[in-house]
Amino acid sequence: MIYKNTESPRRVKNLKYLRISNRAEIIRCLSIQGPISRIELASQLGLTKMAISSIVSEMIEEGLILEQGTHASSDKSRAALPENPSEESFCAPSAGAGRRPSMLTIHAEQINALGLYLSRDAIEGVQCDVTGQIIRTWNHPLEEFTNADNYLEQIDELLDVMLFETAGRHVVGIGISSIGPLDMSTGRLLSPANFHGIHNLSLTKFVQRKCSFPVILDNDMNAAVQAEQLYGTAKKYRHVVYLGIANGIGAGVISYGRIFQGSSGVGGELGHMSVNMDGPDCLCGNRGCLELYVSIPVLLQQSGSLNIKEMVNQAVNDPASANAWQPRMMQALTTALVNIANIFDPEIILLGHQSIYLAPLLLPELENEVNKHIIQREIRHIPIRIAAFGEQTPLVGAAALVFQAVFRGEIPVC
Amino acid sequence: MIYKNTESPRRVKNLKYLRISNRAEIIRCLSIQGPISRIELASQLGLTKMAISSIVSEMIEEGLILEQGTHASSDKSRAALPENPSEESFCAPSAGAGRRPSMLTIHAEQINALGLYLSRDAIEGVQCDVTGQIIRTWNHPLEEFTNADNYLEQIDELLDVMLFETAGRHVVGIGISSIGPLDMSTGRLLSPANFHGIHNLSLTKFVQRKCSFPVILDNDMNAAVQAEQLYGTAKKYRHVVYLGIANGIGAGVISYGRIFQGSSGVGGELGHMSVNMDGPDCLCGNRGCLELYVSIPVLLQQSGSLNIKEMVNQAVNDPASANAWQPRMMQALTTALVNIANIFDPEIILLGHQSIYLAPLLLPELENEVNKHIIQREIRHIPIRIAAFGEQTPLVGAAALVFQAVFRGEIPVC
Repeated sequence: MIYKNTESPRRVKNLKYLRISNRAEIIRCLSIQGPISRIELASQLGLTKMAISSIVSEMIEEGLILEQGTHASSDKSRAALPENPSEESFCAPSAGAGRRPSMLTIHAEQINALGLYLSRDAIEGVQCDVTGQIIRTWNHPLEEFTNADNYLEQIDELLDVMLFETAGRHVVGIGISSIGPLDMSTGRLLSPANFHGIHNLSLTKFVQRKCSFPVILDNDMNAAVQAEQLYGTAKKYRHVVYLGIANGIGAGVISYGRIFQGSSGVGGELGHMSVNMDGPDCLCGNRGCLELYVSIPVLLQQSGSLNIKEMVNQAVNDPASANAWQPRMMQALTTALVNIANIFDPEIILLGHQSIYLAPLLLPELENEVNKHIIQREIRHIPIRIAAFGEQTPLVGAAALVFQAVFRGEIPVC
Repeated sequence: MIYKNTESPRRVKNLKYLRISNRAEIIRCLSIQGPISRIELASQLGLTKMAISSIVSEMIEEGLILEQGTHASSDKSRAALPENPSEESFCAPSAGAGRRPSMLTIHAEQINALGLYLSRDAIEGVQCDVTGQIIRTWNHPLEEFTNADNYLEQIDELLDVMLFETAGRHVVGIGISSIGPLDMSTGRLLSPANFHGIHNLSLTKFVQRKCSFPVILDNDMNAAVQAEQLYGTAKKYRHVVYLGIANGIGAGVISYGRIFQGSSGVGGELGHMSVNMDGPDCLCGNRGCLELYVSIPVLLQQSGSLNIKEMVNQAVNDPASANAWQPRMMQALTTALVNIANIFDPEIILLGHQSIYLAPLLLPELENEVNKHIIQREIRHIPIRIAAFGEQTPLVGAAALVFQAVFRGEIPVC
């Protein structure tokens, strides 16, 4: 199955849809929130206790849900409880005061996803379970002689290892988190700048040929924000902007709990937002684009540093040494983030990709400045935080793409 | 019912939900697309012919759907057909070659919405049917002595007239399309600049007290884009940006077929997008905001004209006379639209509010320039067009808010 996540969910609403949808919601609640009772589940999903009981029973039988036993209100009384409480019971009926409903947990090892992260430097792999735990990772640095011909071969080799090592591990899908630009409608990697001459690569189809489960492709910014919104710093939010600073600058946006892609999958493009219509020419044909002021190569050049960590260390230890570049970087970044906050109206902004290393220079001033200037400043403060998964965010994001599809019922778990 | 359209659709998925959802999809198809057969309906919605037949029968009985009779493939043979074809028949079984399935239409007068448009100058009202036809309008110019005390009274009076004149007309809801800023979570009009000292007005609650049907509030830009996306120039698109130029500048954005509001309802704020981080100070606290270069008062001041139509006429007849302001306006507007096109990745951009009068100055150059500079230029051309409902767009939009809720099953039609 080639999974097109540019499409909206199907419209067919029949009994099968209901069943898949309700099971998916239960998996989501248990995976994200942890142990939860049937009563709480019924209340959260707006279903009857009867309906929840019936679906949960089925899922316990299938081994997808574990029941932790009927808990008493103290450890003492728990010991006195029967060992096999009825799976159907919301609350054991006659065991006296203090009886608590039994708690349900997801049987995490029964629902796994693989992720592939195609970055400038490497092909990385990950296996995550449905609670967002990283089970294992793989790393294949790109070979020096990488070219359009052997790039797919290198992906192929890593995939073989991943598939072999996870055989029988209940993998429900594989996500690909890739540098862009992508053509989402055909699952192709178009022409990344300075990337081994690679052009118009049928990524999704290639991976699909090797896998019996669904393949989901998205760019690394979108994948990253999905990881953070399901399992990371933005876990409780439905409107999230993830700012990724690297060779270029990108953004991943979640709005209403869903990755914002736009009509052709380039939505959230932030690097070529002009913050200075009278500014210098950019290679993209615009003037004054954000990337001209903030991307890592620009900052290294301006600071005369060899790498980002050295640059930040020096600026932290000797702030005056950064006067030539830091104020202008802050001004451009603040302007762009105010613009994007006014447009997307997020609950939180995350710093990711290599901007996690810039954080000591950026925070808390960036958060203060942005919140001073946004239109909604009287009704909302937008925190700016670092991505919880750090450098691994776009990698974990690849697996998160799969889990979000599971939670929406778009990849049914049977 | 206070209808919060900041919220995502409820999650409860039961049989009642299925029924409402499928009926709503049928109403959408018939209202937007016009006459359609049961077979086509079944195919579009992914439901079985049996399911469609059963739901359609019920809706015909309720008077919501009309059946146009079993058509033959030519006018001649049509005359020979029986007058009362079975309502259940997908295709009459034995009437020979050329028999066509009977066509269904929505009984438009059975589903109406009211709309209120609160602008700087007036309180306007509209009754629309579910196909987007304007049935009647009302106009109440704001009284000169309007203040915070009597503004609601004026709304009250117009509403009384509207409710009286539409009694028994199958009104399913009322939409309010209001100048901002709004607090969507409480249904309040906050503090519009220079607007009769009005502050923190409980709009939704006030209107709800007078109405037995749902009330939906949104800002005039969002309402406008909804009208255009359901019934106007953007009818076939799911990703739309509506640019409204007036005293200030706003944008209404539809993405994935849904109004984009962000987390606090200010999403799509375009007027205070900075296109020049080194530019002049704006009252909002930023520098170089779009409004400093393009809003109507700014253009009138720069051109020395008294009104927008005079200004445009003069610039069209004597282009040299506009040299002092037109190039800078075009530069700022192009920069902002490229930024927003890179971010929202729409299929179409609409010019609305008073920018419809600017169109002779803007088009086609604006469309050409924007498309030269967007990131997705190799895979997409974004047309820039004028809103079909012209000045009435935000008014019709008020009713469109209601119909979008009907089409999503959020306002059930029984």
